[in-house]
Amino acid sequence: MTVDPIPPTVAWVDGAVRLIDQRELPGRLRFLDCGTVGEVCEAISSLAVRGAPALGATGAYGVALATRLRGGEPAVLRAAAEAAGAIIATRPTAVNLAWGAQRVLARARSAAGQGAAAVRRAALEEAERIAAEDVAVNRALGRHGAALVPDKGRVLTHCNAGALACVGYGTAVGVIRAAAEAGKEPRVWVDETRPVLQGARLTAWELDRLGIDATLVADSMAGSLMAAGDVDVVVVGADRVAANGDVANKIGTYPLAVLAAYHKIPFYVAAPTSTIDLATPDGAAIPVEERPPDEVTRVGRARLAPPRTRALNRAFDVTPAALVTAVVTERGIARAPYRVSLRRLVSGSSGT
Amino acid sequence: MTVDPIPPTVAWVDGAVRLIDQRELPGRLRFLDCGTVGEVCEAISSLAVRGAPALGATGAYGVALATRLRGGEPAVLRAAAEAAGAIIATRPTAVNLAWGAQRVLARARSAAGQGAAAVRRAALEEAERIAAEDVAVNRALGRHGAALVPDKGRVLTHCNAGALACVGYGTAVGVIRAAAEAGKEPRVWVDETRPVLQGARLTAWELDRLGIDATLVADSMAGSLMAAGDVDVVVVGADRVAANGDVANKIGTYPLAVLAAYHKIPFYVAAPTSTIDLATPDGAAIPVEERPPDEVTRVGRARLAPPRTRALNRAFDVTPAALVTAVVTERGIARAPYRVSLRRLVSGSSGT
Repeated sequence: MTVDPIPPTVAWVDGAVRLIDQRELPGRLRFLDCGTVGEVCEAISSLAVRGAPALGATGAYGVALATRLRGGEPAVLRAAAEAAGAIIATRPTAVNLAWGAQRVLARARSAAGQGAAAVRRAALEEAERIAAEDVAVNRALGRHGAALVPDKGRVLTHCNAGALACVGYGTAVGVIRAAAEAGKEPRVWVDETRPVLQGARLTAWELDRLGIDATLVADSMAGSLMAAGDVDVVVVGADRVAANGDVANKIGTYPLAVLAAYHKIPFYVAAPTSTIDLATPDGAAIPVEERPPDEVTRVGRARLAPPRTRALNRAFDVTPAALVTAVVTERGIARAPYRVSLRRLVSGSSGT
Repeated sequence: MTVDPIPPTVAWVDGAVRLIDQRELPGRLRFLDCGTVGEVCEAISSLAVRGAPALGATGAYGVALATRLRGGEPAVLRAAAEAAGAIIATRPTAVNLAWGAQRVLARARSAAGQGAAAVRRAALEEAERIAAEDVAVNRALGRHGAALVPDKGRVLTHCNAGALACVGYGTAVGVIRAAAEAGKEPRVWVDETRPVLQGARLTAWELDRLGIDATLVADSMAGSLMAAGDVDVVVVGADRVAANGDVANKIGTYPLAVLAAYHKIPFYVAAPTSTIDLATPDGAAIPVEERPPDEVTRVGRARLAPPRTRALNRAFDVTPAALVTAVVTERGIARAPYRVSLRRLVSGSSGT
């Protein structure tokens, strides 16, 4: 097996949660070891780690980390529950965070009665399973999605739904990687993705490492590219897919979906089934995080706007299912009507 | 008459063209005195001065400046013609640049036979007239446009079509100012306008000086704002309006027009008749400037993307007339069919 040119985003190393510190990219590839749940929460809040599937694994490891405290089984189980609550509270939109934390908590609880050591072992094993599954899931997702990318297709993507948004391989970027591995020679338009610039900083960095043709554009250039016939497909990730197919993803995704529909360009959402939340009926029920205005008024140390200027920083938007051509998962591809197709995929049967 | 809180963008001071150096805003209000045509061209290319009407006045003063050289009438007229050519070549999209330079050149030529001093005087008088007209034109445009802004209306604008894009007062921002002067208390969403951030740096600075309520957003947030019902009208400027009503303006304008149409929000273009180019039949005939990729890969000194990442930097896009609710000029408001209504306004009769 070839070595992935991008190291794991999240891993368990020497009793700590080791993260690629994404705040430092693309300047430096540095790792951040979180030895406490507080450090995990801070890493999530400050976007050292971000991306729905990566948050799922980080939340999972965070709960496993909480079980490492000294003490008897009741104290360990209490710590795991508290950690899950604290971790889930850090960011409201990505459903995988809760999914990963709760999955480890449930596994820990299922070991109750076997002693603290068994609870710890069960929690860590479950977190490791989630991380290992992530890469396998994304590779499967990529294979399904690659079929949707035409030969030498020009793919526009937004934000970073790559290896760095997962444990590895990526979802939307995974589709592009799989298309490249299948010899399709995709060419990628990378939206820079203001305000946090995950496209310019992270997706461009990944595609450079992977040797995939990429051109960076400002987010506002997508319309011009589409009008000129320079975009064949749009592929984005998701932070949460509601039961009806509405999709919460990075701010700027919804305008791309409207533009894609206007230009009759397919708009694909690449998301593992862990991102599909059947408990959320539709987009209106998805909480949308508002982040500090400083992310808009500054880039690094440079202040862009006058000192008194207010800014709004909605981190996500919601794309209605009607604008989504298909949702690509590891179990297959869902198309409208999504209430039926997504439920079928989540319950485990394969897609169309 | 009250003093405008924003000094003239372009003026003739002590035999030089004095510009607000917009590269320094919002940090510092500094002036740049251009004593040669080469300095004027460099100021235009580097975006020390930008905005279609401001470029019209700058081009006009630049040609007047060229006539100041020592020498007889033939040399002076030759210098004026060379200056007009050099100035027009700096930026291809804004039609006002050619309009202003050619208007002064024609006036200088009409004084031929009266001696070098008369040619110089004619050229400078014409440039001064263009600058004075600009503010009067924008105030008239603003009054027409203010009628389109509802009470306490939430106005979204893109880039800077304010005083800094003109000699003074502004076009799109002029509409907002006139609405404020009429007691309508508009609230403004300011698109930051990547890559050069004219919204964050210039429009936010102007609205702060004017005491008009403003909130800065990333360009990609417009869709979310519209979907939430938080935008009543979109008002933008223009670099060139073709005879059929197609509009070239800052990159990102076209996606706003598509989004506005999708959400049934009026999309207004505020432009003086000098921006309407009846010689350009439609948007396909408008040259779209491509600027250095560094504007996308960097903000100030900070490099945003990996060193090898390529970027595309299309400076403008073209919005088809079908997406434009109305074009607001100093002579009235044009609506579809634009081939008729624009021609009527340019030829001097008032609009509907």
